Amino acid sequence: MKLLLSNALIVPMTAQGLYFRGDIGIDGRHIAFTGTNDPSFVPDRIIDASSSIAMPALVNAHTHLSMGLMRNYKDDMPTLQAWLAEIFPIENKLTERDVLLASRLGLVELIQSGVTTFADMYFHPQSTAEAVLEAGIRASISVTLFGGLEENKQRVYDREKLLRPYIDRSEGRIQIDCAPHAIYTCPKETYQFAHSWTKDHQAILHTHLSETQLEVQDCIRETGKTPLEYLLDIGALQDVKSLLAHCVHLTDSEADALHDLDSSLVHNPSSNCKLSSGIAPISSYIQKGVTVALGTDGASSNNNLNMVEEMHIASLLGKVHATTHQKLHPYDVLRMATADGAKALGLQQKIGMLKAGMEADILLVDIHKSHLTPLNDPFSALVYATQASDVDTLICQGRVLMEGRRLMTLDQDQIIKDVQKSWADVQQR
Amino acid sequence: MKLLLSNALIVPMTAQGLYFRGDIGIDGRHIAFTGTNDPSFVPDRIIDASSSIAMPALVNAHTHLSMGLMRNYKDDMPTLQAWLAEIFPIENKLTERDVLLASRLGLVELIQSGVTTFADMYFHPQSTAEAVLEAGIRASISVTLFGGLEENKQRVYDREKLLRPYIDRSEGRIQIDCAPHAIYTCPKETYQFAHSWTKDHQAILHTHLSETQLEVQDCIRETGKTPLEYLLDIGALQDVKSLLAHCVHLTDSEADALHDLDSSLVHNPSSNCKLSSGIAPISSYIQKGVTVALGTDGASSNNNLNMVEEMHIASLLGKVHATTHQKLHPYDVLRMATADGAKALGLQQKIGMLKAGMEADILLVDIHKSHLTPLNDPFSALVYATQASDVDTLICQGRVLMEGRRLMTLDQDQIIKDVQKSWADVQQR
Repeated sequence: MKLLLSNALIVPMTAQGLYFRGDIGIDGRHIAFTGTNDPSFVPDRIIDASSSIAMPALVNAHTHLSMGLMRNYKDDMPTLQAWLAEIFPIENKLTERDVLLASRLGLVELIQSGVTTFADMYFHPQSTAEAVLEAGIRASISVTLFGGLEENKQRVYDREKLLRPYIDRSEGRIQIDCAPHAIYTCPKETYQFAHSWTKDHQAILHTHLSETQLEVQDCIRETGKTPLEYLLDIGALQDVKSLLAHCVHLTDSEADALHDLDSSLVHNPSSNCKLSSGIAPISSYIQKGVTVALGTDGASSNNNLNMVEEMHIASLLGKVHATTHQKLHPYDVLRMATADGAKALGLQQKIGMLKAGMEADILLVDIHKSHLTPLNDPFSALVYATQASDVDTLICQGRVLMEGRRLMTLDQDQIIKDVQKSWADVQQR
Repeated sequence: MKLLLSNALIVPMTAQGLYFRGDIGIDGRHIAFTGTNDPSFVPDRIIDASSSIAMPALVNAHTHLSMGLMRNYKDDMPTLQAWLAEIFPIENKLTERDVLLASRLGLVELIQSGVTTFADMYFHPQSTAEAVLEAGIRASISVTLFGGLEENKQRVYDREKLLRPYIDRSEGRIQIDCAPHAIYTCPKETYQFAHSWTKDHQAILHTHLSETQLEVQDCIRETGKTPLEYLLDIGALQDVKSLLAHCVHLTDSEADALHDLDSSLVHNPSSNCKLSSGIAPISSYIQKGVTVALGTDGASSNNNLNMVEEMHIASLLGKVHATTHQKLHPYDVLRMATADGAKALGLQQKIGMLKAGMEADILLVDIHKSHLTPLNDPFSALVYATQASDVDTLICQGRVLMEGRRLMTLDQDQIIKDVQKSWADVQQR
């Protein structure tokens, strides 16, 4: 199947400030060319993209997909800890089926806001993997660890077996990673086990880190070290790829230390605001050469999975207290949500930029909108003015998942109905 | 004409936390009832609102509607002053026709994001008034003052004459107010003239105040007083209703002083972030009893006029650095965008709440959406998760301006075309 996106305003994310008008040829799963149409490329189908910006599909690098069930529920608790105390008992009641339904719901949201790749941390990961296969998108699905070593050894063993068939059928779109939840929910031995499993499997160690001042203070009190120092001290991050979510409160020397590790940060601006965790100094991290990705966190601390809005909020927070040289520019934010998100998940050879040879993960933003008129600078337009509802068409690995806002792989009406029933059931249990 | 909105989830904004399912009867321009249908009310038309939240239409209390022309243009300048130095020369080239077209564009955006009332500060106000009449919404349209007394006297005299016919035809939907731009663009005499004109006309004095640290520092250096103290010293705010935009940097004692004045603040969170002006301590102002409204500012410092997104951003900024008792709750934010916005514009007897006798300015939010499932708390849902594109239907003074996202009074396609041409022309001049 050869698909041509014709006459788009292309923002390839291959170089600062670069954009041009042209065609994009897709041959099977891959991008054949961007720019001028090669006459030897005879498309089976043409999508008119003349009223669209074409850009790499977005990467949501930290979420808990199924927490959509607890959306708009128990909001505005005094602290992160108080909120978790409300959420954990609910989570203990969730079945595989609840997680399957909630995952489908989350995938509808992701597709509707231009995301083809996400990194998830949640229970019953095999249910999420099943929904991901149905939806046709990409995922880093982590086996999530809480508590002590023995139960987690068993958990990883079991989950890996359950996940394997989905990974085998995913045509390279699902990877299995390992997520010790946080230093305040997992002891040292669990992190060390996660580290060793991750290293053996050439996977990613995905964890929450330095999200709140309280976490940092508690860690210093208990160990004499900051959370990152502590993880380095127990050998949890050396010689593996890691994905560190939140990192609101890293010191300068901690950010410098990251430079010698294969670690990427994930910025979660909405969640960090809503839970009063603070504003992460993202432009300072980026200036130190740290790879920073962007994520929505779960819908119960956001309360949506809207990566387009997340870019806008990241951009605003990256400027509010900034002096000139520290300002996070629209291009930086777009990189976080595309190329650097891909890099954080080890996918930089496959996705995150539009160029020949990459897999075709592409979104078309409809710019025939009042709020995108006049367009002027497309980078500003994408970050400051675009809405998720402007995402018209989404392509993952060459397959059209949404076109003209119509979902091709998921049945939104049925999913909404199923989730409403499932959530009512959970509350009765 | 009798219109029934049937079986809505009604958020009337008449009391903290109140919501219920019921009907809303609209008789001509007014709300006849909310709640249980009165059998004597025989509607000419019924809109099924069973999949909607019905709430008061939004009030955008500070904008520069026609700055949509300069959307995504010259973004991310080092300071507010440097940005204004780029924008002012462009503004000098704008004609009445440019402002008419740009106003129409802005009105499309406002309607599409649930706004029926806005307070505008811009040039050629008669063109904006013309567009407002076409659109069928409400406006406080200010005559905007820059520079010295004599030119402004003439300007107010001329503009008032031009505006009068539109006001007369507006059925009470347009009011003429007076807007000395800021203390750094208008001398004392201009403010005093604005004050006296405002008092004579029982109008509103609308101005920018304490937007940046630089403005405050300059004012203290030049006058020995803060901007608010200075305006009080020259008698610009006493005995008139005033609308003070931004107010990012008021001291505690300044906020206390507002209590004795008929002054309302307008919070512009996106613009304050984007221009690195800072985060206004809104919950502290509200706790002091100050009326705080919400506004988008102009699209060139935002870069859209999306009040739904503005509520979300206001909410996040109202929590990020907050301790528990200071947190801005969803209900507070909804009040800013509805009842308190109405109060700030002197319209609290007409709009801002859904109850019998008020004029019918109502929006329906379609909650059959992935990102609003499950709904759980409707206040959280409206502030944290709702998107402008969820605004399905908008009613102003009993008249349907949008239904099923279809605009009833404005032609979006033509307006987009006209504005693109107008902006291309402006850049050539």
